[in-house]
Amino acid sequence: MQSIENALELILSNKQNFGTETISIHDCLDRVLAEDIYADRDYPPFNRATMDGYAIISQDINIGKNNLLKITDTIHAGEEKQFALESGNCIKIMTGAPVPKRANAVIRIEDTHINGNEIHFNVKQLKENQNIAIQGEDARKGDLLIKKGTKLNPNSISLLAVTGHAKLEVYKLPIIAIVSTGNEIVAVESVIQPHQIRDSNVHTLKNSLLNYCISAIQTALIVDDKIALKNTISELLNTDIIIISGGVSKGDADYVPEILKHLGVIEIFHRVSIKPGNPLWFGKMPNGGVVFGLPGNPISVQVGYKVFIESFIRKCFDMEPIEPLFLPLLGEKSKKSNFTEYFPCKLTHENKKSGLAINKMNTSGDISTTNNSDGIAIHPSEKQTIEKGEFVEFYFW
Amino acid sequence: MQSIENALELILSNKQNFGTETISIHDCLDRVLAEDIYADRDYPPFNRATMDGYAIISQDINIGKNNLLKITDTIHAGEEKQFALESGNCIKIMTGAPVPKRANAVIRIEDTHINGNEIHFNVKQLKENQNIAIQGEDARKGDLLIKKGTKLNPNSISLLAVTGHAKLEVYKLPIIAIVSTGNEIVAVESVIQPHQIRDSNVHTLKNSLLNYCISAIQTALIVDDKIALKNTISELLNTDIIIISGGVSKGDADYVPEILKHLGVIEIFHRVSIKPGNPLWFGKMPNGGVVFGLPGNPISVQVGYKVFIESFIRKCFDMEPIEPLFLPLLGEKSKKSNFTEYFPCKLTHENKKSGLAINKMNTSGDISTTNNSDGIAIHPSEKQTIEKGEFVEFYFW
Repeated sequence: MQSIENALELILSNKQNFGTETISIHDCLDRVLAEDIYADRDYPPFNRATMDGYAIISQDINIGKNNLLKITDTIHAGEEKQFALESGNCIKIMTGAPVPKRANAVIRIEDTHINGNEIHFNVKQLKENQNIAIQGEDARKGDLLIKKGTKLNPNSISLLAVTGHAKLEVYKLPIIAIVSTGNEIVAVESVIQPHQIRDSNVHTLKNSLLNYCISAIQTALIVDDKIALKNTISELLNTDIIIISGGVSKGDADYVPEILKHLGVIEIFHRVSIKPGNPLWFGKMPNGGVVFGLPGNPISVQVGYKVFIESFIRKCFDMEPIEPLFLPLLGEKSKKSNFTEYFPCKLTHENKKSGLAINKMNTSGDISTTNNSDGIAIHPSEKQTIEKGEFVEFYFW
Repeated sequence: MQSIENALELILSNKQNFGTETISIHDCLDRVLAEDIYADRDYPPFNRATMDGYAIISQDINIGKNNLLKITDTIHAGEEKQFALESGNCIKIMTGAPVPKRANAVIRIEDTHINGNEIHFNVKQLKENQNIAIQGEDARKGDLLIKKGTKLNPNSISLLAVTGHAKLEVYKLPIIAIVSTGNEIVAVESVIQPHQIRDSNVHTLKNSLLNYCISAIQTALIVDDKIALKNTISELLNTDIIIISGGVSKGDADYVPEILKHLGVIEIFHRVSIKPGNPLWFGKMPNGGVVFGLPGNPISVQVGYKVFIESFIRKCFDMEPIEPLFLPLLGEKSKKSNFTEYFPCKLTHENKKSGLAINKMNTSGDISTTNNSDGIAIHPSEKQTIEKGEFVEFYFW
């Protein structure tokens, strides 16, 4: 039996290289960058007005006095004017427009009084570069802006657009197959008998993978029959990842480990001191791909995906591990086993401070406990009781 | 000028009904339920073994003594046996299988010793219903499991599958158009001049909407030209939502409010006491749809989407407002304005307690400040300074 740390190390050390591909910025949400993104020029690219107003030379202005300047021109955003501002003059300027040379402040319209071609300024204070965003203050040409291994979200895609990355290099998506096993399992569309259970694991896994843009190429539901299992799995040995749920425990009909070994998949470990999800099986296919065998309870699949499979996929994409939150538990929790326990929690708050409420859970066969949860918190192996108010490690689903 | 609360109230009171449609469970990730989901039967649907072992009648067992029972049958998951267990007998049972009538505990294999057809049990303790998940303990037939207005994630879809919902009623998606305006703005694919800026707002908005499965039907980039603006917007008046970025402030070329009014869009408000994003314009089209006019800075669009547009979409989908986190600020922050300020933060932790680090921000024209942030925190209007360690309201992007 492996500790979670050892199991994760063994899983991550089998990381794969899926290769990279070039895609358009228009189709990159949730894809993972395979290149570093640098600033193509200074940002702002020029001294830019941050208000509608008048570009002036601050030395022309006496604070608290009435100052008269001549308006010689107007600059809109998107216009380029090469001249330098001369002392005694000012230029009307719009938000976003380049501030002309020698101008070192923009005075907002509200602090002015216009009289034909002349304008009176009366300001109570004037700072150097007031209402000007200075060239390069946000980023310098060549600065690293987005790191390889970043999963692209609307804000990072916005930054890709600003810096002119219409095409980008991302990691190719792995080919993944999902197999559900179990005599008691039927598909959601089937008529169900009282002793049967509908397959939910394929839906958990398929949709979790979609968060990384990965569409499982094949999903199969097979009964606990050695020949059927062997035939189905043998056709999947050319994939990058096979995820099997069910059939990995010690029961009479738990044929998965035996069949996998028979098909040349090398067992790397079986069983982890985690709850739920202890009978996890992990192995390597002849083609270099990997197989995860998860126990069949819905929550075991949800936790097993989160802790092991998602970590593996992120590693293959050169992503950082997910950072936990550390939040107080708003209840007490005891355990008897010396396993590490993951338990579903809901974010809530007491006196405007965030904390975690523990979701009710009867057994790891529960179907509803994770539905109303925001994620899972960790009850460390060596700890019997977590007191109310103690800080725990928490991961969003 | 509206307070944020008033602005939100005005926006939400114009919520629309996009109607509903029936879709397959295979294509429902991130869609929003338009029906309540109930348990179709008890869960577990029968008393279920939670371990591989032997189903026994607890009265047959003397704790701490050696007990001899006769194995009369085996039940696998997915099998149904109608008989009742008789005293003196036991039945081998696999995880997930229905426990036979009269049996009231499952003893795990490790606590037994087999001798032909007979089996010795030696247990140190025995609880009523040990290793049995009792019918209905997780959910009773008819229990409300998932509420209307829930955005479907892998776990809720898992629950839909278990309970046999192969088809579901979800809200139809609105028809949304995105327009970027500004003479200085060019598309990401264009060759850029030093005084120009690439359009990032369309990417922010398009990808933010994709989180709700909404594909914007049209995106347009127009210069600050009244005729071009009028022609483009007039063709979008049959949509549900138009989102325009740029052209809503007080500058000489800010034609958007004027054009919208000319086209029959009724102004509901202009300007909100929020920073960034103060010049927000909101109005109602002749067809009942709405128009959001956001100032053109990238962060104004990101914050404006999050605070106003996403709230509007959620309201139309009968979703609850997003719950904030309340976390300590790991720095000090002052402001001068009496506006409510939203500022980008990154989740981090000190001494294994989560908190928020403030992202560096020069002006609301910054392009890079939100890229490394996890969300936005609120600096309330009436507060000048937030001290280090004070709890603030935080929203994930």
